[in-house]
Amino acid sequence: ESSKAEEVDPLSEAVKVPVVRLKFGEVAEASTVVLLPVCRAEENDVLEAPWKRRSEGEFGVVAAEKGWSRWVTLPGWGPVLGLGEGGVVVAYSDARALPWKANRSYREEAILVVADRDKRQVAADDGLYLVPGENGGGLRVVRGVVLKELGVKESLGVVVLVVRPPRDDNDEIADEEWD
Amino acid sequence: ESSKAEEVDPLSEAVKVPVVRLKFGEVAEASTVVLLPVCRAEENDVLEAPWKRRSEGEFGVVAAEKGWSRWVTLPGWGPVLGLGEGGVVVAYSDARALPWKANRSYREEAILVVADRDKRQVAADDGLYLVPGENGGGLRVVRGVVLKELGVKESLGVVVLVVRPPRDDNDEIADEEWD
Repeated sequence: ESSKAEEVDPLSEAVKVPVVRLKFGEVAEASTVVLLPVCRAEENDVLEAPWKRRSEGEFGVVAAEKGWSRWVTLPGWGPVLGLGEGGVVVAYSDARALPWKANRSYREEAILVVADRDKRQVAADDGLYLVPGENGGGLRVVRGVVLKELGVKESLGVVVLVVRPPRDDNDEIADEEWD
Repeated sequence: ESSKAEEVDPLSEAVKVPVVRLKFGEVAEASTVVLLPVCRAEENDVLEAPWKRRSEGEFGVVAAEKGWSRWVTLPGWGPVLGLGEGGVVVAYSDARALPWKANRSYREEAILVVADRDKRQVAADDGLYLVPGENGGGLRVVRGVVLKELGVKESLGVVVLVVRPPRDDNDEIADEEWD
């Protein structure tokens, strides 16, 4: 059975976007957490999600410029802390949406893609970028080199981090295979 | 100088609502976190804040029934985990808003009041309840016995937890004084 991920991945070079697996019970290795608006991959509302967010007071209350219904709390990983107003998360129910080499370990795994809408220019060949889906519906993640070949210069945002879900410890081998 | 807190506190009995102080980094280290909508004490939008919230998938993405601009991530403390759809947080910039015995240690401290809008009946004398402010503006926290004396049978929600901000370790004595 050939997977979609294999088809959209003509490259052998590694994509230089950090991939982390959330640990059970971890909301961080750092001492901070970050609250980000979440978009669903099947919708195309990544630019509608709130931009300005300020932290109010000592409890880390996040006040967004406008209401939004979907949010996630992530550990304060470096790439997440480095985000400005353009920070957004896209939730994929299936990691095959990513242009990665396919293997069984991630096929049926949900994934979060953390992107920066402030950096929309397609710059790096080995970067990953959010772009609208085929018929304007949904959100795809595509390699910079592929977009360049297509003459696409602007994306919806550059991917800064891919987050995999927590899972049982007895599944270590598959993890290494994937990364 | 007599404080407002002293004036509204005719009782000597302790209020049986748990009070916790958030520790630095505690949210990040918690094995579970809870995302709750936040209302500001000076507004009166506690019933407008989203009710239905479901957790989507393995990343703890929270999807609310409607958009809301202000949110806070709290550690999964018992009273917080026990909240259903009625869970809401009210942010006070000054703890003197609470009917506590006044002392210097908390006067100028911000505070979060976690309330359950599903339990609006004024039941316990020593409970704390959210009620609209004097001219319908803002949100006050009032003891059950005071509301009963006034004939008020329904509140906006019962207070299940009061959260104090993290602070430096060299401030321990004042903390004990307050609790």
